[in-house]
Amino acid sequence: MKKLINDKSHFLADMMDGLKYRDEKIEVIEETVVVRRNKKTSGVALISGGGSGHEPAHAGYVAEGMLDAAVCGEVFTSPTPDKVLAAIEAADNGDGVLLIIKNYAGDVMNFEIAQEMAEANGHEVKAVVVRDDIAIENEEQRRGVAGTVLVHKYAGFLASSGHSLNTIKEKVEEMMTSLHSIGMAIHPCMVPTTGEYGFDLQDDEMEIGIGIHGEKGIYREKAEPVDKIIERLLDELSKYNEHDDLVVMVNGMGGTPQSELSIVAKYTVESFKRRNMKMAKLLVGDYMTSLDMQGFSLTIVDASDELMKALEAETNSDYFN
Amino acid sequence: MKKLINDKSHFLADMMDGLKYRDEKIEVIEETVVVRRNKKTSGVALISGGGSGHEPAHAGYVAEGMLDAAVCGEVFTSPTPDKVLAAIEAADNGDGVLLIIKNYAGDVMNFEIAQEMAEANGHEVKAVVVRDDIAIENEEQRRGVAGTVLVHKYAGFLASSGHSLNTIKEKVEEMMTSLHSIGMAIHPCMVPTTGEYGFDLQDDEMEIGIGIHGEKGIYREKAEPVDKIIERLLDELSKYNEHDDLVVMVNGMGGTPQSELSIVAKYTVESFKRRNMKMAKLLVGDYMTSLDMQGFSLTIVDASDELMKALEAETNSDYFN
Repeated sequence: MKKLINDKSHFLADMMDGLKYRDEKIEVIEETVVVRRNKKTSGVALISGGGSGHEPAHAGYVAEGMLDAAVCGEVFTSPTPDKVLAAIEAADNGDGVLLIIKNYAGDVMNFEIAQEMAEANGHEVKAVVVRDDIAIENEEQRRGVAGTVLVHKYAGFLASSGHSLNTIKEKVEEMMTSLHSIGMAIHPCMVPTTGEYGFDLQDDEMEIGIGIHGEKGIYREKAEPVDKIIERLLDELSKYNEHDDLVVMVNGMGGTPQSELSIVAKYTVESFKRRNMKMAKLLVGDYMTSLDMQGFSLTIVDASDELMKALEAETNSDYFN
Repeated sequence: MKKLINDKSHFLADMMDGLKYRDEKIEVIEETVVVRRNKKTSGVALISGGGSGHEPAHAGYVAEGMLDAAVCGEVFTSPTPDKVLAAIEAADNGDGVLLIIKNYAGDVMNFEIAQEMAEANGHEVKAVVVRDDIAIENEEQRRGVAGTVLVHKYAGFLASSGHSLNTIKEKVEEMMTSLHSIGMAIHPCMVPTTGEYGFDLQDDEMEIGIGIHGEKGIYREKAEPVDKIIERLLDELSKYNEHDDLVVMVNGMGGTPQSELSIVAKYTVESFKRRNMKMAKLLVGDYMTSLDMQGFSLTIVDASDELMKALEAETNSDYFN
C-alpha cells in the first residue's frame, strides 16, 4: 500500500494535527472533536460527525453558518459516545443542540447514547438522521451520504436565523423528504488502515450505487461514457423527486480531478434540459468523499425558497462555495 | 482507460461547458478563454493560462482579487497565440496587461507571440515567467508549477491596490526570486487524451521531482513514510531560501485525498520547527494539479509584508482560501 501517511495506526491523530494547522477557525478538543475557535453565544448548536475518510466532511464544515462541532472517528468507524458528548458539552450555549447523524448503525447508536448522556446532564438535544442514498431500496436502511452536507448548510442557516431547536429539526426533516443521492465509482478507495481496497473492479468496469465507506454498489457494468452514467443515475433519482425545481449537487469522491467533475456537471445540466427538469442551483465539488475513490455522486433536493436562501447565505467554510 | 469523460476528443470543450455551469462569476469567450463576467473598469489586467489538466488552475482563479482571464489549452498543451490575444483584448481596460506565464517552451512562445500582436494593436503588455520548480537545476529551464498560484494572488492584490503595470511586474519579479517548489508522486496521472500514464511506478515506488504534466521526476526511490518524504523535499528547498520567515504551500496533485494533505501539513509544520525555520503562513489544498496524480508539492517563498497582505486580501475565487 502506498499512502501519504506516516503510520496507519496514527492516521486519525496525524490528520487532526494537520487540521489544526490548516484551519485557524477551529480548535481540536478531546483529541478528535473539532469546535469553532469563536464559539457562538446564542442559537442552536449543530453537531455532526462520523468515521473519517470523507474529508472535507465533517470538520471542514465547522464554520460560521454551518456546524458548531464535528466528531471525527477512526477511518470509516463511528466516533465513541464520550467524544460526541464532549462535542455537545463544548458547543451548547444553552439554546440546545441538533445532532446531524448519517444513517449507519454505529453512528446512530453512539450519537443516541451521547444524546441520552447529555440530556441527563441537562442539555436539550435533538437528532436528525440523514438517509439520502437511494442505492438502498429500504427507506429505513438508506445510508447518509453527500446530501448530509446540504443538511449542514440548511440547518446552519436556520440556526443563524434564530430558529428554535424544534423548528430546525422539523424544517430539516421536511427538507430531507426530498433529499436523494446516488453514487458511482470507476476506481475503489484504498483504506489506509487496512491496506485493502473497498471493492475490486476490473480495468473496464464501473460500480453503480457505491457507498462512501468502500461499500460495493448495487451492480457493476462495463465502464461507459460519463453522459450514459449520468442517465443511469438520473433515471434512478428522478423516480423520487416529482418537484420540477431542484438543487443539484455533483460531488467528487476524493480522487476525481476537477476537470472530470466539470465534465460531469456539463452532462448533468444537459440531461436535466432533455428531461425538462428544472435546476434551480448547481453545486460542484468534493463535499463528501471516500478517501481516494474516483467517482462521483449526484444529489437532488426540492429547491424550496428557504433552502435557496440557505445556500446563498454566507459561511466561512473553505469547502462550501 | 477509465475516465469520467464522454470522448477524449472533446475533453476540453466539455470541461469549458462545465466551468460555465459551475461558476457564475465567469464567462467563456472564443471557446477556451475564461474572463470575468464583471470586467473590472480600471487597474492592470492579469492573464494566465496554459495547458489544461491543472484544475482549478488557471480558470478557477479568474475572480476578484486574482486573474482577469485564463486561456485554456488542450490537456498539457499550450494554448495558441490567437486565444491569448483574445484574452488580452477582452481583459485590457486601458491600464495594461500582465501575462503570467509558466516556463514551458510552448507557453512562453505562444504568449510572447500574442504579446507582440497585442502591442501592434496598441495594447500595453508585459510578461513574467514563473520558474519555481527546483527539480530542474538550470535556473533558466525551471518549470512553472504550484508557485504560480501565489503569483496570481500577489499580482491580483497589487493590481487591486492600483499599482502600475511596470510596478507590478517589478514587484512580482522580486517576489519570484525566493519562490521555490518541488513535487513528488506515488501514483502517476492518467492522461485522458492519450490513455497513457505520464510515467510508470512500481507498487512500492515513489517519484521525487515530478512535473505537473506527467514528466518523470529526478529520481525514484522505494516509497517512504510521508515525514521522510517531506525531509527530502525540504532538504532541497531549504538550499534556496535563507530568509527564515516563509509562506508555505502544500499542494495536492489532484488525486490526493484531503486527509493525506492534512497529514502532509502536519509533518511539514513539524519539520519546520525542527529546522528552526519560521512559517509565517501555511496554505493547504489542490491549487495546481496534474489530473488525477496522487502526490503533493511544497512551495516556499519569503513572507514579505506585502505578500502577507496579499494573501490575506479578499478574493471571490472558490479555490483560494
